[in-house]
Amino acid sequence: MSFQLKPQTEAGKRTIDAAQSLIASLAERATQSDTDNQICPENYDDLISSGVASAFVPKELGGFGLNSVQDWITTIVTLARGDGSTAIAINMQLGVSRGMALAYQATKAQGKETTGLEHQLKQILSGEMRICATATEPGTDNLHPLTEAVANDKGYLINGRKIFVTMSPLATHMGMNLRMRDNDGDHLVSTMLPMNTPGLEPQDDWDALGMRASGSQSVLLNNVQVSRGAIRKLGTWGQWNSNVLINRALGNLPLVGAFLGIAESAHDLALTKISSQKRVATAVINRSGVQHHVGEAEILLAQCRAILSAAGMATDEFLQRHASTPAAIEDCHRLMKDYQSAKWVVNRGAIDIVSKAMDVLGGSGYTNSHPLARMYRDVRAGPFMQPFAPTEAREYIGKVALGVWPTE
Amino acid sequence: MSFQLKPQTEAGKRTIDAAQSLIASLAERATQSDTDNQICPENYDDLISSGVASAFVPKELGGFGLNSVQDWITTIVTLARGDGSTAIAINMQLGVSRGMALAYQATKAQGKETTGLEHQLKQILSGEMRICATATEPGTDNLHPLTEAVANDKGYLINGRKIFVTMSPLATHMGMNLRMRDNDGDHLVSTMLPMNTPGLEPQDDWDALGMRASGSQSVLLNNVQVSRGAIRKLGTWGQWNSNVLINRALGNLPLVGAFLGIAESAHDLALTKISSQKRVATAVINRSGVQHHVGEAEILLAQCRAILSAAGMATDEFLQRHASTPAAIEDCHRLMKDYQSAKWVVNRGAIDIVSKAMDVLGGSGYTNSHPLARMYRDVRAGPFMQPFAPTEAREYIGKVALGVWPTE
Amino acid sequence: MSFQLKPQTEAGKRTIDAAQSLIASLAERATQSDTDNQICPENYDDLISSGVASAFVPKELGGFGLNSVQDWITTIVTLARGDGSTAIAINMQLGVSRGMALAYQATKAQGKETTGLEHQLKQILSGEMRICATATEPGTDNLHPLTEAVANDKGYLINGRKIFVTMSPLATHMGMNLRMRDNDGDHLVSTMLPMNTPGLEPQDDWDALGMRASGSQSVLLNNVQVSRGAIRKLGTWGQWNSNVLINRALGNLPLVGAFLGIAESAHDLALTKISSQKRVATAVINRSGVQHHVGEAEILLAQCRAILSAAGMATDEFLQRHASTPAAIEDCHRLMKDYQSAKWVVNRGAIDIVSKAMDVLGGSGYTNSHPLARMYRDVRAGPFMQPFAPTEAREYIGKVALGVWPTE
Amino acid sequence: MSFQLKPQTEAGKRTIDAAQSLIASLAERATQSDTDNQICPENYDDLISSGVASAFVPKELGGFGLNSVQDWITTIVTLARGDGSTAIAINMQLGVSRGMALAYQATKAQGKETTGLEHQLKQILSGEMRICATATEPGTDNLHPLTEAVANDKGYLINGRKIFVTMSPLATHMGMNLRMRDNDGDHLVSTMLPMNTPGLEPQDDWDALGMRASGSQSVLLNNVQVSRGAIRKLGTWGQWNSNVLINRALGNLPLVGAFLGIAESAHDLALTKISSQKRVATAVINRSGVQHHVGEAEILLAQCRAILSAAGMATDEFLQRHASTPAAIEDCHRLMKDYQSAKWVVNRGAIDIVSKAMDVLGGSGYTNSHPLARMYRDVRAGPFMQPFAPTEAREYIGKVALGVWPTE
Repeated sequence: MSFQLKPQTEAGKRTIDAAQSLIASLAERATQSDTDNQICPENYDDLISSGVASAFVPKELGGFGLNSVQDWITTIVTLARGDGSTAIAINMQLGVSRGMALAYQATKAQGKETTGLEHQLKQILSGEMRICATATEPGTDNLHPLTEAVANDKGYLINGRKIFVTMSPLATHMGMNLRMRDNDGDHLVSTMLPMNTPGLEPQDDWDALGMRASGSQSVLLNNVQVSRGAIRKLGTWGQWNSNVLINRALGNLPLVGAFLGIAESAHDLALTKISSQKRVATAVINRSGVQHHVGEAEILLAQCRAILSAAGMATDEFLQRHASTPAAIEDCHRLMKDYQSAKWVVNRGAIDIVSKAMDVLGGSGYTNSHPLARMYRDVRAGPFMQPFAPTEAREYIGKVALGVWPTE
Repeated sequence: MSFQLKPQTEAGKRTIDAAQSLIASLAERATQSDTDNQICPENYDDLISSGVASAFVPKELGGFGLNSVQDWITTIVTLARGDGSTAIAINMQLGVSRGMALAYQATKAQGKETTGLEHQLKQILSGEMRICATATEPGTDNLHPLTEAVANDKGYLINGRKIFVTMSPLATHMGMNLRMRDNDGDHLVSTMLPMNTPGLEPQDDWDALGMRASGSQSVLLNNVQVSRGAIRKLGTWGQWNSNVLINRALGNLPLVGAFLGIAESAHDLALTKISSQKRVATAVINRSGVQHHVGEAEILLAQCRAILSAAGMATDEFLQRHASTPAAIEDCHRLMKDYQSAKWVVNRGAIDIVSKAMDVLGGSGYTNSHPLARMYRDVRAGPFMQPFAPTEAREYIGKVALGVWPTE
Repeated sequence: MSFQLKPQTEAGKRTIDAAQSLIASLAERATQSDTDNQICPENYDDLISSGVASAFVPKELGGFGLNSVQDWITTIVTLARGDGSTAIAINMQLGVSRGMALAYQATKAQGKETTGLEHQLKQILSGEMRICATATEPGTDNLHPLTEAVANDKGYLINGRKIFVTMSPLATHMGMNLRMRDNDGDHLVSTMLPMNTPGLEPQDDWDALGMRASGSQSVLLNNVQVSRGAIRKLGTWGQWNSNVLINRALGNLPLVGAFLGIAESAHDLALTKISSQKRVATAVINRSGVQHHVGEAEILLAQCRAILSAAGMATDEFLQRHASTPAAIEDCHRLMKDYQSAKWVVNRGAIDIVSKAMDVLGGSGYTNSHPLARMYRDVRAGPFMQPFAPTEAREYIGKVALGVWPTE
Repeated sequence: MSFQLKPQTEAGKRTIDAAQSLIASLAERATQSDTDNQICPENYDDLISSGVASAFVPKELGGFGLNSVQDWITTIVTLARGDGSTAIAINMQLGVSRGMALAYQATKAQGKETTGLEHQLKQILSGEMRICATATEPGTDNLHPLTEAVANDKGYLINGRKIFVTMSPLATHMGMNLRMRDNDGDHLVSTMLPMNTPGLEPQDDWDALGMRASGSQSVLLNNVQVSRGAIRKLGTWGQWNSNVLINRALGNLPLVGAFLGIAESAHDLALTKISSQKRVATAVINRSGVQHHVGEAEILLAQCRAILSAAGMATDEFLQRHASTPAAIEDCHRLMKDYQSAKWVVNRGAIDIVSKAMDVLGGSGYTNSHPLARMYRDVRAGPFMQPFAPTEAREYIGKVALGVWPTE
């Protein structure tokens, strides 16, 4: 396939190969999970046993030691060829565990105690720890969470509501961002809580057009008491800073891969199906209208793969460039802009590719039992991925290009 | 609303007003019918009692005496603002009953016996006769039906399979095209049969991505015995002729209106919902990204309405021009081309408008219980409407423009 | 041709027929005028003698008595099939003379003295009076002219600079908008001056990519002294009001027709040229890629014609509706929005159609001597037409749709 | 700049740096050359003295030893930021000299005599040898040249007409493809002739919409007598083979870079100009409509760069993979398809980016003296680059994807 994303590192190759080995079984279970509107536990068992779920765990602790963002993206593309819901769900855990692996390595490099992190990473390896994450609430954006941690004598009391908490039904832990105000100011903070924390109440309310097996229910935080140490400051509430920009960009960029994977799968499906079909007396593949349509889909695919790959490589280069020196906030906005450009092109392109696959295949792809119908619903989730919404992306990209730096 | 389609005749006004009065109840029942995957009998009762279902029945027999194709389109647009499934379903009956009304008038003008037709038209008025129609079979196109009527001593024995037989669960009769070969050649013929004809077997197998309440099941014809008089010759099998072109164009053009109606409804829904919403501290309607998105949707709506209206008016003018003089086949191809251009623009535009409405409204529109999610599924049916498929339309239009006349 | 704009009135038919009769000669002179970068006086002689230039002059005074905006648009479309430059140039005079004809009729209806207006309208008929108009200045917009009329004891002294003063090399008079401040406030005003007014200095500086024969030079106003009565108040400087909205919308809408006319002409040219060509051994018209391309161009043409026609008809209806009752400013914004939607679709569509004609025709259309090369340059002027620029239109349309009324 | 193409090799870096050093002077001379409609000799002196013109000459002979196709593309992108005409002109020589360098290395590796090739490569280095090339004739395509070499007792007599012979006014030699029929069959052959060969008659007839300084005149071959050894067989006339596919793909892929370079330059120009401008009272960069427009242009740029880079890298990988093993013709078609996908996206994207730059800058960019107006004309040449035309590309890409292998 033209411009297909390829492993950039040895660890990436192992991860992507492992993901590849799961495609068939993911695809096989996808229709049923979609019908049941349930996240599929077998898929997660496979992700754990194949090593994909713990790909970021360092080699010395038994993981693949994945490091490259580009390879992470390709892993998600690969999984989504089997099932989009599963791909976006495991991406949550990959994002958080990447952070933990980096923290482990930094701590170790400083010669400090790593037992706690080591333990957690091994639990990720074994599947005892399964982490979901969310930064979404109704009526606000990532920078302005309304869920708030209010200091009390035991630490903080958290109240609020998180939505789109993908993978939460299978998770043991949940990472999230919060607001916290104190004498020093109005803070953007983060925390990670066990799912069985009192007051943390999953709502079992996920019932969407697509991505039905992603378990993206909402979770209520109802007087959740946490200790003082459970909160980590990220910056000022409502304001971009370098770290928040970098993490929001690289943690969400792989999600874009899920929609490319769905599109690739839909396109392949249509091409395979029509390869032996006739319409009236003509082989379908010899119809010039079909050839034009397929040509257009191929161009879109080439374009989506190329820009996603370029964004992945740019991100890896950015991280390498700033491994020891901090990044100016303008450069972080440029990184975010690259992610946004890739997201814009791929999200829209993927929807179009799936729709063209439906055109090429004809009416049978519109029946509910057909995988293409599910893919058409799943792929529409792409534009909702955070940040920025389709109503925000062009303006943001334009501002960054014009040097009109967004502060929020 | 800009360039909204408007009644052209008094009969049209009555029909469209009647359709308008049903929007609220259609909309109210739409979610349930979609969930149940069932055509909604109450909607059809309302269509009958309001007079919409019998709009083409001549005034002297108690109908509205609808005549204008443009008004027929506007009726379908209007109904689809309430429910797309219902709009495409009743279009079947409108198409067939229009033909019956014309036959009645022609017969009467010749001073011949009209009792039979009069009886049928009155049954349409009362709802005793409800007619669905189909021209679709798997793996072939409208011109090359494989369902065949084979002469025997009692008349003809029909075998075959029809798909997308919209409205059939509520129908008393079913119109369709067939193949029939005899010594004179290979014929394209049509017939209309009572649904309870032995061997006519509805499959109750409609379960699609969208238009779930349209009852578009497949119907098996299993040794269906009909009399010699039940078959009407349309022309040569596999070859366009003037009448077939005209009827395929004008009978399907109103269907395009269903997708415009869905898009209008989705757009209105989004605008209404956001009119009082805030995101972070800003009123959503004041966000420039939202304004750009809405602006783009408005342009698309204006464009879809304008071209559909132009196609409707061109069709009415065509029919008037050829009321007494037959139309050259080249002109019939040009009429079909006009329909195809309108179909191309509206089908694609409508999908885009609904998608933009989802962008504007945000994640809530992606939940299954939200009407927008249903509209997103329903509106995707547009490109499948016959003839021509998206993989055929541009080539057909180009050929006609270039004078490379398609024979099949 | 599908959805071609057609005369709506008898006066329109006469005007459009007259325009039609000029196409061949306009086309014949277009290349030379473009090369010379000069407005073509013979074209204007023909416009006068054919009656097109004075179409709005009432019948009783010897004109065609044109009234319909839709017919005005169709006239411009027709002329632009011959030459785009000429079409946009005469549009200036048509806009101003329409206003004069309306003033004449209103004055007459009130039983007042009409000698002055009558004289002017007869001079338009004879060609003694030729009027250009402009509302454009660098770095500002139509509502905020910086050219200012400052009161002195003789009346007003005007200083400033107008650009894109189309048709000015052949004009005897020039209409324009100005700023004027007095004790009552900051006013938007208009004036019409003889071209030989001292201080009114045409710059002979028009040398553009396209529309080279439109004479759109800039004009300096260098201490131009006018009498007190020469100034007419339009409203508050920098603020929309109903009349300004209506006049800006309807006076510029016909300009959109020029770009449709160019596109029609380019498309026809390509189709005519390829009709007898072969590429390798195949007739060009039988190549499926060419058929697809032509099909796409036909769809675009259908779409452009339909929306321009819809906008014209909506404008005529608006004017009729508000013949005696004033229009609410919201409705005037909606009229402007309709013009903007049509402008957006047609300007972009026309550029695309000409480009597709170049694709279809191949390299020969890219040579400088080929009319298609000129059309490609001419058609790009469309998006610059006032108001609003492409960087403004979507936001404006969105705001109006959302009821966020723009005050400026 | 996001996803900007970067040097992949040391030789590439030297070449691209050299190209970079010429941008300012190329840009400075571009307007004059365009006005004069003449290829600019100073640019070619600079290309020679900077080493760009001889970049493919092996290091041991004094050149840069360029090898990577990706770096070749980036060189053309870089030059086109200064002047598109110059970029496409020198690409001809680069293509031919690349072939000569490879021949030199292969000959040397076989231990054979290289004096002749060495001499030519040194002449390229010094500028004594300047090579243009063409594969274009009217009414046919690259595979079916009608210019024919007919055997006679002195060798071959060549007659025919070549068009778009870019760079020919400055060339000392001209490479081209021909038809030659003998007892073995109907052959596609190539030759390279000194420009002063008797009967080789440049027509000095280049006068196009854009790329006016590229010297793309036509050349008549009027009884040109060549020796038997001057002809090299490429394959069967009218049929693709692996080598022809590879050479047509990689020799033309860098041309795509010229249109990206023009677009980059136009975009930069607009952004620079507006950075200090106001419109009415607002800084232009703060207008949300401008931000949206710029955002869209940035997305297009990102997309064009990404796909062109992906195509370049895929080509380098292809060449490496097939350095010693021949490529199956299916894989060569896939390579051609990758080039076609990149060409489709970049040609269209580049036109759109330049057009958006004009929107953003406003009317001043439409004046003839403005570089943007030239860029708008130059960038339109992209779709004419060979093979395949816009009317052929989608069908070709679709066929390859469907395994319907084009033989011609």
